[in-house]
Amino acid sequence: MSDIPTIEQIRTAARTIEALVHRTPIFTSRSIDQVSRARLFFKCENFQKVGAFKARGAVNAVNSLEEKMLKCGVATHSSGNHAAAVAYAASCKGVKAIVVMPNNASAIKIAAVEGYGAEIIYCEPTQQAREAALREVVKQTGAAFIHPYNDYRVITGQATAAMELLEQVPDLDAIITPVGGGGLISGTALAAKAISPQLSVYGAEPAGADDAFRSFQAGHIIPCENPDTIADGLRTSLGELTFPIICEHVSAIITVSDQAIINAMRLVWERMKIIIEPSSAVVLAALLTDRTSIRGARIGLIISGGNVDLNDLPWHK
Amino acid sequence: MSDIPTIEQIRTAARTIEALVHRTPIFTSRSIDQVSRARLFFKCENFQKVGAFKARGAVNAVNSLEEKMLKCGVATHSSGNHAAAVAYAASCKGVKAIVVMPNNASAIKIAAVEGYGAEIIYCEPTQQAREAALREVVKQTGAAFIHPYNDYRVITGQATAAMELLEQVPDLDAIITPVGGGGLISGTALAAKAISPQLSVYGAEPAGADDAFRSFQAGHIIPCENPDTIADGLRTSLGELTFPIICEHVSAIITVSDQAIINAMRLVWERMKIIIEPSSAVVLAALLTDRTSIRGARIGLIISGGNVDLNDLPWHK
Repeated sequence: MSDIPTIEQIRTAARTIEALVHRTPIFTSRSIDQVSRARLFFKCENFQKVGAFKARGAVNAVNSLEEKMLKCGVATHSSGNHAAAVAYAASCKGVKAIVVMPNNASAIKIAAVEGYGAEIIYCEPTQQAREAALREVVKQTGAAFIHPYNDYRVITGQATAAMELLEQVPDLDAIITPVGGGGLISGTALAAKAISPQLSVYGAEPAGADDAFRSFQAGHIIPCENPDTIADGLRTSLGELTFPIICEHVSAIITVSDQAIINAMRLVWERMKIIIEPSSAVVLAALLTDRTSIRGARIGLIISGGNVDLNDLPWHK
Repeated sequence: MSDIPTIEQIRTAARTIEALVHRTPIFTSRSIDQVSRARLFFKCENFQKVGAFKARGAVNAVNSLEEKMLKCGVATHSSGNHAAAVAYAASCKGVKAIVVMPNNASAIKIAAVEGYGAEIIYCEPTQQAREAALREVVKQTGAAFIHPYNDYRVITGQATAAMELLEQVPDLDAIITPVGGGGLISGTALAAKAISPQLSVYGAEPAGADDAFRSFQAGHIIPCENPDTIADGLRTSLGELTFPIICEHVSAIITVSDQAIINAMRLVWERMKIIIEPSSAVVLAALLTDRTSIRGARIGLIISGGNVDLNDLPWHK
């Protein structure tokens, strides 16, 4: 795919991947509705395969590869959920996966990648180190690189979450998604604007990794250097493919403190009895922090994942 | 109600309470199926109102009271979830609730009861102290006592969970429920045996509060003295109304260690991304501990509740 995905391509992707990913449920909570003074619809991708929406993009990307390309396997770099997703997608196809992970990735995410039979190569936790290690892998093995977000096949796969959400709850005013590299929010924006042009899409981002907020304001990509946030899935920078889609379709990027993320995460655990990771809690944190910027009474929140190290919960520190 | 509830009474109760309780979803987990070598269907009462199946029995009991009885309010004693359920049921009717709670009840359960506007009276954590305090409340206020389990209206309400489960998954071989005072398991047995006579019902109980196991073996009620288990909802003893139903309809009571409960609880949190309390995890612990006693390939597990103090998780001790 060399052009911005169309709604027809997103619909095709949804049919292509449906045997390998879950149609995740929508949860609601009367008590959190009262706190937020809105009607919230949580798209529970924490119940997705590999515990995160990333399964959608990875399965779609691996499915798109021709047989002869699959022979050398697939490779990627990721802080965790995309790594597990590529490992899962490769295992479904019976091909080898090699993943480059930062050496501070969480234990549970490392275990998940290993569980799907992928090979892990560790690197320093910087964008540069990841990319260098990945180039080396591709050079040595000929594996097909599945980028975590800067890839239209991945963006198309991630877009299927919002498409499903709008089938399940057609009359939303707004959708809020987390922003890391921008794969989820750009896919969400493409699907949502095609299906409901009047709907607003917002991004939620940790203040300690606010490259999307700053890039959006500046009109050009400002990479994220030395990210400092508990939201381990959101430490990456926007990509050249995701940034223009965000600029065209997203209404605002809202930044939140780590404390607001932890509070929102705990609120969801206590009231909804579901496990969400910090990178997911950022969407509710944004809503509770900056309700005035978000217009709409009926709001969809994409809960991106539920992979948490239960030995290391933020309220125990 | 002075006779053992019939399936018609259970169906009527389901219609009576449906506006005030959730029809909770069924969750499945391929990875836990593999571990247990069975096909499991989790009836997620952790997503029920007040975070536990207890809402069903309490709402049914309070709904059954005549207007003139409601004037003096309702009262109960409970380690937590039934207390919140009675408080919730009373608040729906706009009547006063007084609940006697043991002074070692968990903080989150106390907060829940307060949140529904009930008055709390604390007592020593023994059956005798609870009952004495409750008698005093009833004497002074004239409140109607809603027993946590030894009440056919409560048993009838709890039975609606299994009835729903069998509507959602009709072809089960067995159902496992936790056993505390026996309200849930006796209601489950009445509903299940009426709908699917060939289906087996099993009870799961902590070894540190194994009065149901010992009573079942002995053929008469042996009260639980000095219960010692993490499963705070299962420290109570069987009642005169629940015990005969259990003797007639339940295939076996399986006891499990607290460590097995903690392991099962953590497995569900990690794999299913849902929050269940120790008293719920006992059913999966029983299945994983004693698979040979439980006959059946398709097994329903009633996940009784999800109220956990997140500051005090068992794997942090």
